[in-house]
Amino acid sequence: MKVKTEEGIRDLRAIWFDNGKVMMIDQRKLPHKVETVGFDDYQDVAEAIRNMTIRGAPSIGAAAAYAMCLAVLSGADLQKASKLIKAARPTANDLFFATDHMYSLMREECDPIEAADGYADMIIGKCKKIGEFGSGLIKDGMKIMTHCNAGALATVDVGTALAPMRAARDEGKKFFVYVSETRPRLQGMQLTAWELGQEGIDHAIIPDSASAYYMGKGIGLVITGADRIASNGDFANKIGTFDKAIAAKYFGIPFYVAAPMSTFDFGTETGKDIEIEQRSEGEITEMAGVKIAPEGSPAVNPAFDVTPSDLVTGFITEKGILNPKNIRKVTADE
Amino acid sequence: MKVKTEEGIRDLRAIWFDNGKVMMIDQRKLPHKVETVGFDDYQDVAEAIRNMTIRGAPSIGAAAAYAMCLAVLSGADLQKASKLIKAARPTANDLFFATDHMYSLMREECDPIEAADGYADMIIGKCKKIGEFGSGLIKDGMKIMTHCNAGALATVDVGTALAPMRAARDEGKKFFVYVSETRPRLQGMQLTAWELGQEGIDHAIIPDSASAYYMGKGIGLVITGADRIASNGDFANKIGTFDKAIAAKYFGIPFYVAAPMSTFDFGTETGKDIEIEQRSEGEITEMAGVKIAPEGSPAVNPAFDVTPSDLVTGFITEKGILNPKNIRKVTADE
Repeated sequence: MKVKTEEGIRDLRAIWFDNGKVMMIDQRKLPHKVETVGFDDYQDVAEAIRNMTIRGAPSIGAAAAYAMCLAVLSGADLQKASKLIKAARPTANDLFFATDHMYSLMREECDPIEAADGYADMIIGKCKKIGEFGSGLIKDGMKIMTHCNAGALATVDVGTALAPMRAARDEGKKFFVYVSETRPRLQGMQLTAWELGQEGIDHAIIPDSASAYYMGKGIGLVITGADRIASNGDFANKIGTFDKAIAAKYFGIPFYVAAPMSTFDFGTETGKDIEIEQRSEGEITEMAGVKIAPEGSPAVNPAFDVTPSDLVTGFITEKGILNPKNIRKVTADE
Repeated sequence: MKVKTEEGIRDLRAIWFDNGKVMMIDQRKLPHKVETVGFDDYQDVAEAIRNMTIRGAPSIGAAAAYAMCLAVLSGADLQKASKLIKAARPTANDLFFATDHMYSLMREECDPIEAADGYADMIIGKCKKIGEFGSGLIKDGMKIMTHCNAGALATVDVGTALAPMRAARDEGKKFFVYVSETRPRLQGMQLTAWELGQEGIDHAIIPDSASAYYMGKGIGLVITGADRIASNGDFANKIGTFDKAIAAKYFGIPFYVAAPMSTFDFGTETGKDIEIEQRSEGEITEMAGVKIAPEGSPAVNPAFDVTPSDLVTGFITEKGILNPKNIRKVTADE
């Protein structure tokens, strides 16, 4: 992804391996400061996943792969390490997928750095495919809505929901993106709008509650990412995705979910079986450490919601655009 | 309304007349500080409406009445004064209604203080009636959702959307209120949650985007206020109301709008004719004066949206609960 730094425009990934260290952009510092941090202990990478230094399901997967890489390099107990890494966040399937994937490769005595780099490259390759398949949905002059950050920051590079936009822009199409700010952590405002700004794609930030207002004024396409997709097509994504899917249905606007196949969790039957992470109330009741809610008023903070598959027009994956009704068929074909 | 102050619990109105001055609670200082301010110039009251020292459609109406009262007491040109007062905010019908009402009374040479106090008392009387009619909708053990602040602060006292809750509580019912925080200005978090806390009503603050999540977990009733209701039942209210009405329809949850009859604007045919106030982008991109959005990313900030009448289960008014299809009949009966 393009990143404007004091030394000029750099082409950075969200996470990479360099000189014995796992390097990552500290996404909590964005959009004000581009700061990279490095770790040589797998437990610190697990903590970086937990405290959201790095976030977004595929980037979390890559971080898990690099954490396993560090565990191997330091001679740690891999079973213990994989357990600790998997406990960092409860919802993203990629976390479990990547950790298990690396665990298998390490039993085959693969080179840990090559294996983790390969995992990151594989994600980027899938994102590019998602961009190719998805860009056809974007028409010249279209208004698009997205939620949270399913961009390059969330997927090592390129993005899932933002991949079709990057591809359509490269094809010379003009379009406008409404970015839902995504309370409480503002990943839409602070990460997606930042990415679009760095790439020169026209956009505006809206409050999460202005979705119906703008959908009623001519949104042609809604694209979000996904954190986990159950085998019936129900999917978990950032809180507010469900509200947008319901509103899109009401207005008859196509609602697409962009995600690599690794986000599908065929061990999970329906959305009801997806555990939802409940985060701290302080994310809502405090702003920059200052209390903004009344004393004595509690807040509740579910990080994700589950959108039922019948609200999804299609899943944009590296294998093509899947009809939610045909997911089982696609797996059966594999 | 009950207000806990350093001198103990006081029974305050949002606005009142005392010793030559229009007094009001500075709602911008809530929930951290209960501060009252006084004005003896009608232009300052108009400015207090504009800068949201006082807000909420009926309270804005009362403020307009008191501003007209000050204009009379100071011997100002009433036509000029009424024009300036009406220009303070563009969307709330009560602002125009109250100003015109006072203008008529002043031509009949009524006492200006009695007339403005009478207007405020009339609002409170209507709110109490709304509470009586609406409390029947609240069942023991129910979970309720509301948005923005349609409480005592917004209506001089008692509230519109909160009136049925105050009445149900007085009847000994137990229930739980999910308060949508209401970005960008957080009137739900900072005003409604504050009022419910002062009154001892159980509640929790949620992000605006968690509406569908909680509706899917057993909300029994959604109640909001309204800023203007067109003669076909379409109504303008705080941005995000439309999203909640669509989601309530999806889940089959009753969606009620609590508002006095003065909120109905029979000169406005449908919601399409309601002008929507666009507020500054800084309300979204800054927090406590600090920029939180990326440099160069614009934001758009419509203050209200318009919900079509077919999403409304009923209007709770001082004349009873009206079916959206029968509004014209009710007026015809008047």
